[in-house]
Amino acid sequence: MQAEIITIGNELLIGQVVDTNSAFIAEKLREAGVELTRITTVSDKRDTITLALTEAMKRSELVLMTGGLGPTNDDITKSVLMDLFGGGLVESQQVLADLKRFLSRAGIPLNANNRSQALVPENCQVIRNPVGTAPILWFDRNQRVVVAMPGVPLEMKTALTGEIIPRIRELYPLHVLISQTIRVAGYAESVLAERLGDWEAALPKGVSLAYLPSYGQIRLRLDATGESAEVLKKVLDHEIGKLKIILGKAVFAWEDIELQEAIGRLAVASAVTFSTAESCTGGLIGHLVTSIPGSSAYFLGSVVAYDNRVKSGVLGVDSVVIDSRGAVSAEVAEQMAEGIRRLTGSDYGLSTTGIAGPGGGTPEKPVGTVWVAVSGPSGTVSKQFGFSGSRMQNIQISAQFALNMLRLRLLADRSPGLE
Amino acid sequence: MQAEIITIGNELLIGQVVDTNSAFIAEKLREAGVELTRITTVSDKRDTITLALTEAMKRSELVLMTGGLGPTNDDITKSVLMDLFGGGLVESQQVLADLKRFLSRAGIPLNANNRSQALVPENCQVIRNPVGTAPILWFDRNQRVVVAMPGVPLEMKTALTGEIIPRIRELYPLHVLISQTIRVAGYAESVLAERLGDWEAALPKGVSLAYLPSYGQIRLRLDATGESAEVLKKVLDHEIGKLKIILGKAVFAWEDIELQEAIGRLAVASAVTFSTAESCTGGLIGHLVTSIPGSSAYFLGSVVAYDNRVKSGVLGVDSVVIDSRGAVSAEVAEQMAEGIRRLTGSDYGLSTTGIAGPGGGTPEKPVGTVWVAVSGPSGTVSKQFGFSGSRMQNIQISAQFALNMLRLRLLADRSPGLE
Repeated sequence: MQAEIITIGNELLIGQVVDTNSAFIAEKLREAGVELTRITTVSDKRDTITLALTEAMKRSELVLMTGGLGPTNDDITKSVLMDLFGGGLVESQQVLADLKRFLSRAGIPLNANNRSQALVPENCQVIRNPVGTAPILWFDRNQRVVVAMPGVPLEMKTALTGEIIPRIRELYPLHVLISQTIRVAGYAESVLAERLGDWEAALPKGVSLAYLPSYGQIRLRLDATGESAEVLKKVLDHEIGKLKIILGKAVFAWEDIELQEAIGRLAVASAVTFSTAESCTGGLIGHLVTSIPGSSAYFLGSVVAYDNRVKSGVLGVDSVVIDSRGAVSAEVAEQMAEGIRRLTGSDYGLSTTGIAGPGGGTPEKPVGTVWVAVSGPSGTVSKQFGFSGSRMQNIQISAQFALNMLRLRLLADRSPGLE
Repeated sequence: MQAEIITIGNELLIGQVVDTNSAFIAEKLREAGVELTRITTVSDKRDTITLALTEAMKRSELVLMTGGLGPTNDDITKSVLMDLFGGGLVESQQVLADLKRFLSRAGIPLNANNRSQALVPENCQVIRNPVGTAPILWFDRNQRVVVAMPGVPLEMKTALTGEIIPRIRELYPLHVLISQTIRVAGYAESVLAERLGDWEAALPKGVSLAYLPSYGQIRLRLDATGESAEVLKKVLDHEIGKLKIILGKAVFAWEDIELQEAIGRLAVASAVTFSTAESCTGGLIGHLVTSIPGSSAYFLGSVVAYDNRVKSGVLGVDSVVIDSRGAVSAEVAEQMAEGIRRLTGSDYGLSTTGIAGPGGGTPEKPVGTVWVAVSGPSGTVSKQFGFSGSRMQNIQISAQFALNMLRLRLLADRSPGLE
């Protein structure tokens, strides 16, 4: 069972936008056991789209398209598909109702332009788009399936995981692939690879390991392929058992969730609250924490103390200490963590202060120097880090290391015997 | 003059790596006036690479390939090119010398594996790789040019900008393409399309418009192609002149920068500072603002008042008002904006309070209800929004609308006659 992706959009061919959709689709197809053989990116022109689609349908049973489904004149995917599959347009009452509801809640008037989104080809299945206005079109003809999805990442992702992948799984009798994702924090990739070397070399046939590093974290994925889901499950469980011993607390989740979600669960389980005092991370930690639904149960708030007057005036950091030790120092980080804890009345306070760059570095404190502190019922600790990325990289990685410090502290306070 | 890109690598087809190389190459080609018509991603298999390359050479005069040039077994681009173009391998003394120097500096011994990198096809031009071990191969035959580059981004980028683009410019008498990006805030795509309909329909031949929507914003791109850069520049300037009248202050930049960068420039130009009080956006506005280098000159800090006690205790919001009007109300938003301004001593305060979802909605205040307030020297104003996305969408779009409200206020205070 082979599949191809066709992404449509001039913005991809002039380098204005990086195609992140394809990697997401590729991963989901792999999980479903579908072999992706080609990704083709073409412009918004009718003849190039038609040519690319015709070629892909000759080679592959499944073609997933993204882009060109919007309400503007440069969106012509629908028209190309109708030329290819024949038939006319009908106004879908369901899509129109979805559209009206979506627009009215957003305070956007219905006009001829966006109303055209409710016109759908009569000979395809229409899949509803819960987070946007363009419906998803599913054509099934002569052993070939063509699916047209919006190019907006969130809309594509929602439709793909919620509707399209389940339908693909139903449609094709696939071999069995079971995966487990393991999320690890606080390791460099090369160090982790060395630590896991013997275990990886001894993995049974059909089981493979992939490293997917991101800011301050590594996502490990164990894939097992074979005939029987039951057998594979046992094989994976056995390997996971070994990993638990090798990696211990470095694993923050045995499933694919973010660090902030793991921390949220830990805070709920421990019935504790926390707050953050951010300097170099500028609000990113608060943003990550509050991206998790229900975070208001354990996250009280944050002070982004970008200016030193905010560090002293709001958080109560001693301005004499700021002057003598510098804003980027253990003392200031610790006073910030204690200050936010006092200010909000939270059980834990987490702070960051550092030099994200590109300016502001000195020989003693180069760009990338970051102090993180955690204050809690059992005291206040701080730690220095040295990162060497761009401004955005340093900010992102600082947030991850800070969150991991908080996680380890919550874990230690919960089970003192383990640290 | 048409070009295509072929990227090679299994990691791209299983979603492990996002293809960022293609966007970089695309941008450089566009700047050189080369029309990129297609990007094809295929696996490391000999027959798929050969097929993709043969097809591309039928359609296009220039094919740029990345990947599959390394020293390991799955790197077979060189072998595919030799099958296609004929001829044998020779050891290049220059490449061997480069290789030895490169390896010795990296402390890696020369072995049979990496020495094979010095073996190059005899009937191509070899372009030196100053930052890696795989040389770049340039084939020129029957009006077709095929260039094979390494897939490692730094090596590809160095070779492309330093050697390949200059050669392409020499080789082809190219048509000219000029683009201008216009960034618009506060418009829904369909409403903007309606507003620009007449203007777009009257665009001269050779000039086209593309819409690239993202959270709460639309990026417009005007492309003009023709013979003379000078003529095209005048044509674009004329159309931009019309757009200025149609869109007015909805345009936050006539170039491709983010809203937070436009606000930063405005704050610097006006010599004012601001701070933020965030509830539903949870720190995202602070993160966006501080992602801009130099933001410490105008951004003093933020309070993320997730808990109502932080709203009253830190920001001084009247808890009687919170109880009577609710935390998501005009009054609370305004008191938050005033409170953060007072607390940090900034010229402006920007606040958000709303229900991001998925929980917390009521019939009177459904999920997506957001109040934004701006407080400044000329007073405090607030505005209600209703969004209908997921939690993350509502947070992202709230941050964009809030930043835009601040921008319009800074603009109005700067030039009172314009509002």
